[in-house]
Amino acid sequence: MTSLSSQTPAGQRGPSDHVIRDQIILAAQQHFSHYGYGKTTVSDLARNIGYSKAYIYKFFDSKQAIGEAICARSLAGILAEVEAAAADGKSATEKLRRMVEKLTSLSAEFFFADRKLYDIAVHSAIAKWPPSQEYIARIKDILAGIIVEGREANEFECKTPLDETCRAIVRALQPFVSPLMLQYNLDDVPRCTNETLSLILRSLAP
Amino acid sequence: MTSLSSQTPAGQRGPSDHVIRDQIILAAQQHFSHYGYGKTTVSDLARNIGYSKAYIYKFFDSKQAIGEAICARSLAGILAEVEAAAADGKSATEKLRRMVEKLTSLSAEFFFADRKLYDIAVHSAIAKWPPSQEYIARIKDILAGIIVEGREANEFECKTPLDETCRAIVRALQPFVSPLMLQYNLDDVPRCTNETLSLILRSLAP
Repeated sequence: MTSLSSQTPAGQRGPSDHVIRDQIILAAQQHFSHYGYGKTTVSDLARNIGYSKAYIYKFFDSKQAIGEAICARSLAGILAEVEAAAADGKSATEKLRRMVEKLTSLSAEFFFADRKLYDIAVHSAIAKWPPSQEYIARIKDILAGIIVEGREANEFECKTPLDETCRAIVRALQPFVSPLMLQYNLDDVPRCTNETLSLILRSLAP
Repeated sequence: MTSLSSQTPAGQRGPSDHVIRDQIILAAQQHFSHYGYGKTTVSDLARNIGYSKAYIYKFFDSKQAIGEAICARSLAGILAEVEAAAADGKSATEKLRRMVEKLTSLSAEFFFADRKLYDIAVHSAIAKWPPSQEYIARIKDILAGIIVEGREANEFECKTPLDETCRAIVRALQPFVSPLMLQYNLDDVPRCTNETLSLILRSLAP
């Protein structure tokens, strides 16, 4: 399953666990990584993978659906590591710190590891593709869990509505979390991530 | 004088107060506003304004220098209103609120008023043209003045180094202040500006 959610992702067809689907995604990822998402057509992909265009369309209804599947896979990988890093924290403050540090360092790594795949994530963020929307929603969920824990332990203030706190924190992290912005803020990681994190922690003080 | 600073802007030549310079900037602004900055050459501009290309090059050493002058003019207009709005606040908290509200509302207005000129501001932000760098520096200066006032009046905490506080706040405002980001966050103005402002004010609490 390549989606962040448990439902069949929009644009994907046929059995969700089909091995061919995974082959297409992997081959497309390699192809996009080399030639770029924008410059590739489904015909190019089909030729390169060795399947017919019609066969690819049995699994994905468009190039975007393949792009979304690749994006969902990359983002799910980041989220899994972020959750694990946060879980290792002994207090809510430490969990938040670990979450933010992991999130920004992995996002920066993603950028440097493969610019062309990163461009798909930028495109996904701008076009508000479902994987990007689900990614942000999941980050808010992880954050909400940490904030609730911190409130219960009297580490964090309780007056501000939880939803508002989470939205405002995710937005304050946008320069380092949004693929679109991060590429222009890379010089500032990690020093400025720390400054932003300190501002967030001051805002959470009881 | 069209620059944000008092020095002759890079890329501009000849006497700084020359009336021809202003004519070129205004005509270029109209031309860019209609055809876009990217698609226009200095030859197109010259033909449209009715001056020779060589004559335009007496005042600006490149198309970018003209773009920078237009950008500086738009941003200086926003800053003047932001400073006036902040000055009207009775406390540092109110000044900060007015500053942020004016900054975000004028930035959004700028977007809706003229997409093609706004694109120059986006380009300027990405390419780190001097007017964008000076704009951010000036916003930090205005902010620093308000924070110092708030610290002296015991409205704001004094432990965090002033520079760090200012940098972190400007970064938290990036989703609404960066021309690049704002265009994707327009649905969120003004509700989310308020939430971000509240987070910032909580972080400033003594």
